[in-house]
Amino acid sequence: MRQIFICEVGPRDGLQNAHHLMPTEAKKAWIASMATAGIEEIEVGSFVPPKLIPAMADTAEIVSFALTLPNLKVVALAPNVKGFERAVVSGAHKVTFPVSASRAHSLANVRMTPEQMVEEVRRCVELRSQLRANTDPEIEAGVSTAFGCTMQGEVPEDDVVRLAVMLAEAGVDCVALADTVGYANPSQVRRLFAKVRKEIGGKLEAAHLHNTRGLGLANALAAYEEGVRHFDSSMGGLGGCPFAPGASGNVITEDLVFMFESMGVPTGIDLDKLMEARKLMVAAIPEEPVYGHMALAGVPKGFRAAV
Amino acid sequence: MRQIFICEVGPRDGLQNAHHLMPTEAKKAWIASMATAGIEEIEVGSFVPPKLIPAMADTAEIVSFALTLPNLKVVALAPNVKGFERAVVSGAHKVTFPVSASRAHSLANVRMTPEQMVEEVRRCVELRSQLRANTDPEIEAGVSTAFGCTMQGEVPEDDVVRLAVMLAEAGVDCVALADTVGYANPSQVRRLFAKVRKEIGGKLEAAHLHNTRGLGLANALAAYEEGVRHFDSSMGGLGGCPFAPGASGNVITEDLVFMFESMGVPTGIDLDKLMEARKLMVAAIPEEPVYGHMALAGVPKGFRAAV
Repeated sequence: MRQIFICEVGPRDGLQNAHHLMPTEAKKAWIASMATAGIEEIEVGSFVPPKLIPAMADTAEIVSFALTLPNLKVVALAPNVKGFERAVVSGAHKVTFPVSASRAHSLANVRMTPEQMVEEVRRCVELRSQLRANTDPEIEAGVSTAFGCTMQGEVPEDDVVRLAVMLAEAGVDCVALADTVGYANPSQVRRLFAKVRKEIGGKLEAAHLHNTRGLGLANALAAYEEGVRHFDSSMGGLGGCPFAPGASGNVITEDLVFMFESMGVPTGIDLDKLMEARKLMVAAIPEEPVYGHMALAGVPKGFRAAV
Repeated sequence: MRQIFICEVGPRDGLQNAHHLMPTEAKKAWIASMATAGIEEIEVGSFVPPKLIPAMADTAEIVSFALTLPNLKVVALAPNVKGFERAVVSGAHKVTFPVSASRAHSLANVRMTPEQMVEEVRRCVELRSQLRANTDPEIEAGVSTAFGCTMQGEVPEDDVVRLAVMLAEAGVDCVALADTVGYANPSQVRRLFAKVRKEIGGKLEAAHLHNTRGLGLANALAAYEEGVRHFDSSMGGLGGCPFAPGASGNVITEDLVFMFESMGVPTGIDLDKLMEARKLMVAAIPEEPVYGHMALAGVPKGFRAAV
């Protein structure tokens, strides 16, 4: 029934960039409320050094809690082998790696070149088969700055395609294309997803879009029309953009859900319950800026969710 | 070279709904700066009774000034024969009529049923050929609430198609479809434009979209993909939405221009100069809420306008 698969990344991508720390218990309540609203996949945290990102220090505890929620795929980010090992121990269902297509961004973000990062991911794929954990986590590579980079500017599409191919060959289960800094436009989204799909087929899965320049939903529409069915988004566009004060962060979950539902494309998510979850989030970090039109305008009179 | 034709409606749709009055001289400077930025069509005011809408009381003077600007098509709204006569006297190049597809909205807005409003427009078309003015103004009918109505809820698509056909038969030069209250979704936009075009062909021209629920650009993209090349928009989403405090009004000119330019589709509009015009607008009504992502985030590094 569900035709769109949304992975809520607010607890990771949002909180990681937020100005305020959300207490662990509030995170749990928020994540539970989003699962209750019908979100079936949540990126709940990141296994990075707590000293680097204090907001992610409780990730193991959050993963552990999230695993108790029914029908929820629990995702954690890992930037390297060390983070992957912690993610496997935590029991996360899926681990996602940021692999930047921009050399400058890659060095700044993970202190490795894109090629070195691919090798890091390859080691994790190999490690997975050796670890004999209770559950082998799914491994995703998110190609970040795939549509442009604030440091490098333009990122050649061929670089993105080559990186996606290397990652597929390294054995990841799925690849996402990420517009990390909100540079993408709808034509580019269509073109790049088509190019990458031509090379790696069904391993190309999610669109991770940001709304920095207001094109988040238009880009999501373009991706949908190009066959994409998996989308990352964050509630309230949480986290904003460090380079553009006042601009929202990820594409906004509530608005994305509304767009698809209003088009008659079911997301499996209940908008009313999603708004309840948003209230929990806002109450937990009341001074953090949040975004989104649905929270202001509500659904149209006579609106019916898609079935 | 220009592939997208944008009609800036901020001085009319925006200021009509704004909380603050913009002084006449500031309006002139703002309109001139937008024309300088390359906007070739501006809806500068509305010939409604000044007592009803004080913000539009200076429309004749504004039209007169705008006619002195080179290469600018000057548009004025008229709600009836009386307004049309004033518009013709003013010398406006184009007169646009709001013809609501929702019976309830039509009665509330112009105190006429949709059918009575079509007759009013027909009288204006006939009047135009009798008036022998210096220039015969182009006549547009904007089918408002074409995608839904806050009073009536759903507006049947057949009602919109029938109304568009009646207006075409009444002799208008062009028909626009307006999402007056921001209810439209991309699928509906495609479907309705296709249906109406099938009946009235090239007389179907502009998409007048609002951004109340954040879908403004996604809907514009859908309309573009359906062949629409004329768009109404307002700088800064000016005017907001009376039913949703904090939500923007029309789709935002700056963001719309950026979307098309980044897609490689030229609008003929200079984004830097557009931002200068925005500064004039903000300075003239500094306490009025304005919206838009481009003003916060700027263009991407290495951005090139379309040619």
